[in-house]
Amino acid sequence: MTRAAPVAIIGAGEIGSGWAALFASYGAEVRIVDPDPRALERSRDALACARTLRKGAESGRILRSANAADAVRGAVWVQESVPEGLVLKRTVLASLEGVLPPDAIVASSTSTLGASVLGEGRSFANRLLVAHPLYPVYAVPVVELCGGRETTQATIARAAETLRLAGREPIIVQRELPGLVANRLTAALLREALDLVAQGAIGVRDLDHLVSRGIATGWATRGPLATELAGSGASTLDEFLKDTEGPMAALLASLADWRAMPPWGREALRRATQGAVAMPGECEWAAMIGRVMKAAEPSG
Amino acid sequence: MTRAAPVAIIGAGEIGSGWAALFASYGAEVRIVDPDPRALERSRDALACARTLRKGAESGRILRSANAADAVRGAVWVQESVPEGLVLKRTVLASLEGVLPPDAIVASSTSTLGASVLGEGRSFANRLLVAHPLYPVYAVPVVELCGGRETTQATIARAAETLRLAGREPIIVQRELPGLVANRLTAALLREALDLVAQGAIGVRDLDHLVSRGIATGWATRGPLATELAGSGASTLDEFLKDTEGPMAALLASLADWRAMPPWGREALRRATQGAVAMPGECEWAAMIGRVMKAAEPSG
Repeated sequence: MTRAAPVAIIGAGEIGSGWAALFASYGAEVRIVDPDPRALERSRDALACARTLRKGAESGRILRSANAADAVRGAVWVQESVPEGLVLKRTVLASLEGVLPPDAIVASSTSTLGASVLGEGRSFANRLLVAHPLYPVYAVPVVELCGGRETTQATIARAAETLRLAGREPIIVQRELPGLVANRLTAALLREALDLVAQGAIGVRDLDHLVSRGIATGWATRGPLATELAGSGASTLDEFLKDTEGPMAALLASLADWRAMPPWGREALRRATQGAVAMPGECEWAAMIGRVMKAAEPSG
Repeated sequence: MTRAAPVAIIGAGEIGSGWAALFASYGAEVRIVDPDPRALERSRDALACARTLRKGAESGRILRSANAADAVRGAVWVQESVPEGLVLKRTVLASLEGVLPPDAIVASSTSTLGASVLGEGRSFANRLLVAHPLYPVYAVPVVELCGGRETTQATIARAAETLRLAGREPIIVQRELPGLVANRLTAALLREALDLVAQGAIGVRDLDHLVSRGIATGWATRGPLATELAGSGASTLDEFLKDTEGPMAALLASLADWRAMPPWGREALRRATQGAVAMPGECEWAAMIGRVMKAAEPSG
């Protein structure tokens, strides 16, 4: 992104306002389209958080636009972040026909829908892709990029380059799958976690404690596959797979595989999650994430 | 643990030597029983790493014993860490009959076997439990504790207290399940990760990057359930479950559920993991984990 290149954010809830803060902190002029009058304020609050995380962060302009046509005028990047739902998202994208600048990239924050279905029938389907951020958007550097059937490789390369200029670390996902990669991995772990709590094997706080002070701390330094590889020499993924026929077979066979949790489990979870601890605010959490990032760097 | 209380480690591979280093760094006299003459050296190397992680860490005595009877004389804690396998572990435990001090706790590092089956027929089954550490043992503070049918509550309480004196954060697992909690959560995520790599959706390094710089960084600060709860107000586990009938249904339905990966996947994984990056040594990794731990503390 060139400095002050306009960016349009369509839908400025938690995710959209995070995108706004991110782009503004790198000097872009950001235009927000959102029916909620608090969207602008939310984005500016997020920008204040983003600025505390990074030396040299700018305090770019964040403005509210009345409609998509106004917002995308001259824009190089349009980030769609309206609530998840195919009809709503397709309606929003349709409103860009005829007003989108000829080179602008259109990115959707969705994780459950694919660029193929979102772009179907759109004249700009070749420059439309999914750019799925994690939360808080300006604090977590990785963004998943995934094109659809009509998305060109040039679009993906250009999108990755633009995000790199905003300090992001784009990860290219090669197949359109529900949840892309991050949400699939999360859902796999979360399902097992909820199942264990519902079964009474462990409490909610103990489970979180075990992950935060154990598993995730290792993964934050080098990821789960490398951890597995390091566990017993370079051939470990292979070992893991061999192991699935040995000691691990009973474990894999007994993992949760429900698609919707049965009623008894919902009841147990409702009881188990009562009185959950208050969480730090977004700004404080973003700062913790920033510290962890730094601590996990090999040179740190 | 009282200072200099003897501890016996039976089996000093990666896990056993980590236990040795931990107890020695808190001032215990540690006796190792292992057929491998390098076990003693490995434990002392681990102790050197443990000492760099913590101010005030001691350089306790680590000795080699010829057999279990010698090692457990006067011991308050016996940590069994021989290779995973029911017959081997039961044989080792049987060798403690008649030589185990009357109050000593016997803990197994197993994660796939339960205290019930390990303790069956043992005169000390009431003071036998599973104490499953993460790796590196002296760097990651959480330890899963799980008793069997005959384990007394007093044993579990005493074990937890002893480990707290060695700076551990014991997590009580209430049901004997293969993999306890940590390895079940790991296996659930790892299966999905391997499946995505085998499908060609993402590369090995990208997946690790996405987790280490994204998902795990958040989890390292507050765990996956709290993250979910924070995502949209206090009722989110409920929302997540409701969601399993809506947008997330397609995702859950498509998660990997194999028990042993099919041959085509193994082949794809073999190709994908060729030329894996060299990992930092244990000591360096332990130091990274220590920094992440500190960074993730709210007050940090």
